[in-house]
Amino acid sequence: MIVIVCLNPALDVTYHVESLVPGSSHRVQTTHERAGGKGLNVARVLHQLDSPALVLGLLGGHHGAVIADEIAAAGIDAHWTSVADSTRRTVTIADPDATVFLEPGPSCTVAEWTSFLASYETAIDSADAIVLSGSLPDGVPTDAYAQLITLAGERRTILDTDGPGLRPGLAARPYLAKPNAVEAGELGGDVAAVLRAGARNALVSNGAAGLSASLDGRRFQVTVPHVAGNPTGAGDALTAGLAAGIAGGGDWVDVLRFAAATAAASVAVPYAGGFDPAVADEIRPLIKVEELT
Amino acid sequence: MIVIVCLNPALDVTYHVESLVPGSSHRVQTTHERAGGKGLNVARVLHQLDSPALVLGLLGGHHGAVIADEIAAAGIDAHWTSVADSTRRTVTIADPDATVFLEPGPSCTVAEWTSFLASYETAIDSADAIVLSGSLPDGVPTDAYAQLITLAGERRTILDTDGPGLRPGLAARPYLAKPNAVEAGELGGDVAAVLRAGARNALVSNGAAGLSASLDGRRFQVTVPHVAGNPTGAGDALTAGLAAGIAGGGDWVDVLRFAAATAAASVAVPYAGGFDPAVADEIRPLIKVEELT
Repeated sequence: MIVIVCLNPALDVTYHVESLVPGSSHRVQTTHERAGGKGLNVARVLHQLDSPALVLGLLGGHHGAVIADEIAAAGIDAHWTSVADSTRRTVTIADPDATVFLEPGPSCTVAEWTSFLASYETAIDSADAIVLSGSLPDGVPTDAYAQLITLAGERRTILDTDGPGLRPGLAARPYLAKPNAVEAGELGGDVAAVLRAGARNALVSNGAAGLSASLDGRRFQVTVPHVAGNPTGAGDALTAGLAAGIAGGGDWVDVLRFAAATAAASVAVPYAGGFDPAVADEIRPLIKVEELT
Repeated sequence: MIVIVCLNPALDVTYHVESLVPGSSHRVQTTHERAGGKGLNVARVLHQLDSPALVLGLLGGHHGAVIADEIAAAGIDAHWTSVADSTRRTVTIADPDATVFLEPGPSCTVAEWTSFLASYETAIDSADAIVLSGSLPDGVPTDAYAQLITLAGERRTILDTDGPGLRPGLAARPYLAKPNAVEAGELGGDVAAVLRAGARNALVSNGAAGLSASLDGRRFQVTVPHVAGNPTGAGDALTAGLAAGIAGGGDWVDVLRFAAATAAASVAVPYAGGFDPAVADEIRPLIKVEELT
């Protein structure tokens, strides 16, 4: 079973408009609302992969209730810790370019964080892998991911975050960190920089240029054929594929191929948190996993 | 008592961002949420004027519940007809220029509209004036305002709408119509065009250029000193001032001066649905109401 920690989920609202003109008024043609945030995208992909998973997260207010209902209706197991403050929304204006507005997240109290930690300790007991994904809401300590990694002990933690939680999280020595090239750049460059920051294994994704990884001391370069579509959420599909592969056991070559195929196939669907299984099957044999010596 | 019909209220959300850049992602600095829509702006101004008023409207879903709570907390009497569909939101991006996104309104069923009509017939029994303000939600017939004006009989109806409901509303001979210059332009030009379309009295507002009116066969031109600030909602403050003046009785010269002062003083506050009483007192004697002969 994979535990997915989702501390700052969001209710993602998309407004389709004809053309965004700053300073003017727009009639919204269609509105779309969906439970979002990186952790929930990972959970949806794992669900589609038939990989048993449990979401742990913080939710508050009306938007929180909408998210809880939607995730339950999707058949995804979740255990939510209530916060008094309201879960955030994001608003995307699609014309069809995406212009995104991210509300500040809720502020989490010390008591709420303590309550979350208690539910985390219970849940990870039988976890084969633990995904720590996305940003931290206000009030949660900057070393939140470090605390969760330390509590996990020898269990396999996968850290996928940016911002203030990344460096302390890495220092707590997660099993695997998977920043994208921009985030790795902020750590000083590449896979080696991620390892120096504390990760036991590191994988850096660089969009269409593929993946580089250092896993149990072995260096890999993964090249993926181009898939046309919507790259939003491809990083979360990659995390889901890695988590499923790691939880299942197997050689890194197979885990990388499987995860890269899941990520590439996620580009073929127009939303984050899903992939096209036919595209995954088609692309898997075309993915080149090179071990560098 | 003034009845204010508010068929399409909105939960107005404002996101303050540093600078709106189409195609990019923005962190929202502060979020502000407020019950809005033209009718509610009118109701708030009447409340500030201590003029007894009752809001009648359609509300649905979570956003509807938020609006009902906020209006009750403001001490404004309201009788809401529930609709199954959800009340709309508007999102304004303030950087500080306003870029506005208007969600489509809820769709109202025939049964819901019939239920609204019943509550309207009861409420207008003791009304001194009836304000019909704002757009029509989907599902409400295009002649909705015409139906309400006809049901009002000899009671004084004030129609302030644009779009598809305007022409049928005017044809039902409201006591007063008050389009702005743009809306009057669509009817063919000026005050005379509004009368030709059916209104018994007409007032056309033209922003800083003032007001022209034809009231009981008398022609007026009103000139208002410039007030710096936020003109959003000034038309609704004008409607509120007119309704209060008409409900109170008195000569049109006094009604016009009072309403124009309320509208001008609304520019001095940074939000719609309010006015600065000190500015109103100061500006009232400076307003020029000319009767054209």
